[in-house]
Amino acid sequence: MAISRAECVALDASDPLRHLRDEFVLPDGTIYLVGNSLGAPPKTAVAAVTRTVEQEWGGRLVGGWNASGWYDLPLTTGDRIAPLIGVGPGQVAVGESTSVAIVKAVSAALGLRPGRRVIVSDLDNFPTDRYVVEGLVRALGGYEIRDVSGPGGLAGALGDDVACVLMSEVDYRTGARNDTAAVTGMVQAAGALMVWDLCHSAGAFQVDMSAADFAVGCTYKYLNAGPGAPAYIYVHPRHQAEAEHILTGWHGHAAPFAFEPGFRPAEGIRRFTVSTPHVLSFAPLNASLDIWERVDLTALRAKSVALTSLFVELVEEFCASYDLALVSPRDPERRGSQVSFRHPDGYPVIRALIDRGVHGDFRAPDVLRFGFAPLYIGYADVHDAAVALAEVLREEHWRDERYQRRLAVT
Amino acid sequence: MAISRAECVALDASDPLRHLRDEFVLPDGTIYLVGNSLGAPPKTAVAAVTRTVEQEWGGRLVGGWNASGWYDLPLTTGDRIAPLIGVGPGQVAVGESTSVAIVKAVSAALGLRPGRRVIVSDLDNFPTDRYVVEGLVRALGGYEIRDVSGPGGLAGALGDDVACVLMSEVDYRTGARNDTAAVTGMVQAAGALMVWDLCHSAGAFQVDMSAADFAVGCTYKYLNAGPGAPAYIYVHPRHQAEAEHILTGWHGHAAPFAFEPGFRPAEGIRRFTVSTPHVLSFAPLNASLDIWERVDLTALRAKSVALTSLFVELVEEFCASYDLALVSPRDPERRGSQVSFRHPDGYPVIRALIDRGVHGDFRAPDVLRFGFAPLYIGYADVHDAAVALAEVLREEHWRDERYQRRLAVT
Repeated sequence: MAISRAECVALDASDPLRHLRDEFVLPDGTIYLVGNSLGAPPKTAVAAVTRTVEQEWGGRLVGGWNASGWYDLPLTTGDRIAPLIGVGPGQVAVGESTSVAIVKAVSAALGLRPGRRVIVSDLDNFPTDRYVVEGLVRALGGYEIRDVSGPGGLAGALGDDVACVLMSEVDYRTGARNDTAAVTGMVQAAGALMVWDLCHSAGAFQVDMSAADFAVGCTYKYLNAGPGAPAYIYVHPRHQAEAEHILTGWHGHAAPFAFEPGFRPAEGIRRFTVSTPHVLSFAPLNASLDIWERVDLTALRAKSVALTSLFVELVEEFCASYDLALVSPRDPERRGSQVSFRHPDGYPVIRALIDRGVHGDFRAPDVLRFGFAPLYIGYADVHDAAVALAEVLREEHWRDERYQRRLAVT
Repeated sequence: MAISRAECVALDASDPLRHLRDEFVLPDGTIYLVGNSLGAPPKTAVAAVTRTVEQEWGGRLVGGWNASGWYDLPLTTGDRIAPLIGVGPGQVAVGESTSVAIVKAVSAALGLRPGRRVIVSDLDNFPTDRYVVEGLVRALGGYEIRDVSGPGGLAGALGDDVACVLMSEVDYRTGARNDTAAVTGMVQAAGALMVWDLCHSAGAFQVDMSAADFAVGCTYKYLNAGPGAPAYIYVHPRHQAEAEHILTGWHGHAAPFAFEPGFRPAEGIRRFTVSTPHVLSFAPLNASLDIWERVDLTALRAKSVALTSLFVELVEEFCASYDLALVSPRDPERRGSQVSFRHPDGYPVIRALIDRGVHGDFRAPDVLRFGFAPLYIGYADVHDAAVALAEVLREEHWRDERYQRRLAVT
């Protein structure tokens, strides 16, 4: 017999992270299980962007580059992300997008492993990871992509021709969590460099990249920094003096204001910046990091495991007679903060569920994804979401014609 | 005998663009002649970002991708920039930075001219232009950069080995304006493709890129979109079906939500987008474009010519006995909306001038730059700025020790 809603309410009352929910904007009547796609806004986000526009841009105009610290934003903000991924200051730079960060990381990795001509890419990565590697391989010439499916296929793919491996800590579709220490060790033992994509892990639990060579991630999912907020790149200190990437813009120059004709890379992580940071988009990111500074990451993980486990348990009980199959690992140690189910009509099911105020999302061909951002999702939310899903399936709401029509973006 | 301040005030009163000044935030007591570096904020910018955070992100959460048009922002915003550069809808995409846009444009140009292995680059370009081409050349292998100095050197540099030419319409240092029609014609006659950098021209006057192959530009200077606002790329329709650049992210994919393993470029200008747009940074850009829709670009150019000519005249009269030399072309037809002078102590002179409320900027080694954004600079401002410059030089304020110390960013 499943846990009752009243018991869930009691769990919320004793949740040590409960107070953080009040720091986020969430529309009334919405249970938002898409924080793994776009996080909810910190309540301070509006004040942060207003301050940036009025006081920094409007008040100081071009003087903001010095007086408001804009020039150093990619590094000062990177230092604030660093603890979330288990690394130190001077190791993370923020800017552009995850796709662009992958171009930097992989091109730098190839330069560090001359003679090795293979990039191993996990087919379970979010597709853009492979797309940008494809573009890079086509541009560089003489390289090839070796596709694997998850870490299981890695052992057979590693050889002395492999320059680097690009893999995600958490699978965007299934929520499966890879063992980064084991994979990194195996890759490095083969003489290759490890590039991790942390989009679905940083902010879901304490990440530890201290042994990895490179890592990239976005800030608009669990880090709640807003649509299209800038991405980050981590470069291990042991590579910083040698690593050179192909996007050699002026902010990565050793003397950007000397206006020399030729490029000389800056020392340290700064060489992984490219050009003028998107200052406005940094404002909500730093507002969000103000919250993250106060988050106990051990409590975060404990709550995440509890929420996802509860959702699996309740859905399997309430929806036992419908055509749902768990896609995510059952073992919480092997899961991120996301639970996915397969349903042959996943798309209209999700749309019908959203109409009932429970926001999940859909990933082709048939996956329903539910993300549990522990900062603002509670136990009663999980109960209500499972009940709503059961109702949609029982009443066959999803068969309604209006849910069948595809939107451009889901 | 120079025009009097009272006559300048009268010119302001009859200026057909005068009312637009009220649409911008400018601190009291500031004459802001750095709009060619970072434009002033439209008064509507705060409301625009607030609406984006509160109503779009907070109100619709991930639903904003459809309901708020975020997914199409790079193209809908590009269509609004198009008239300012003399091109049509479906030809401009907005995103990332100018540096990244140059990587896209030049890599696409090289693909369109197989067998030609030279990129001609103007040493008068802003340095990042050459830096990113350098990175590209190193990555691709087998290409070389042929440096020229302005269009004068171009004829001797063009040959059947040249794939493309990268040049700026307006020189960031001197304000000299190139004849884009003549240069484009000469480059294309040699079988090469023309890539224009419009950072210092779009928004200063009506640009016409209709014959060019590619163009790039930023939006944070004359377009007033805020620090680090996204850049744009223009691709002539005749190239859109063939051109492929190296930054092949998922937003440039033909079916981004099909999550196919391999990259297939989208039709049209969309293939020049890379990944999730920086949504917040688009908000002030669109607020600014609301103003631009109402600007008569012929009147804009007439006022720009009048302001810059007046500044040259007044400075040369008021400062005749000091060590200032005009760097910008004397012929207004050959100038953008900027006037530069050389002074051996340019850096402390500019800092002393800023302390008197007149904001210009400095570019190494000895150039004082003054930008005249016709939307918010008036004739009396020009008079006051020339008077202040003369005072700083006459009283030798700039010799004060506090002005000699270099700041990280100037």
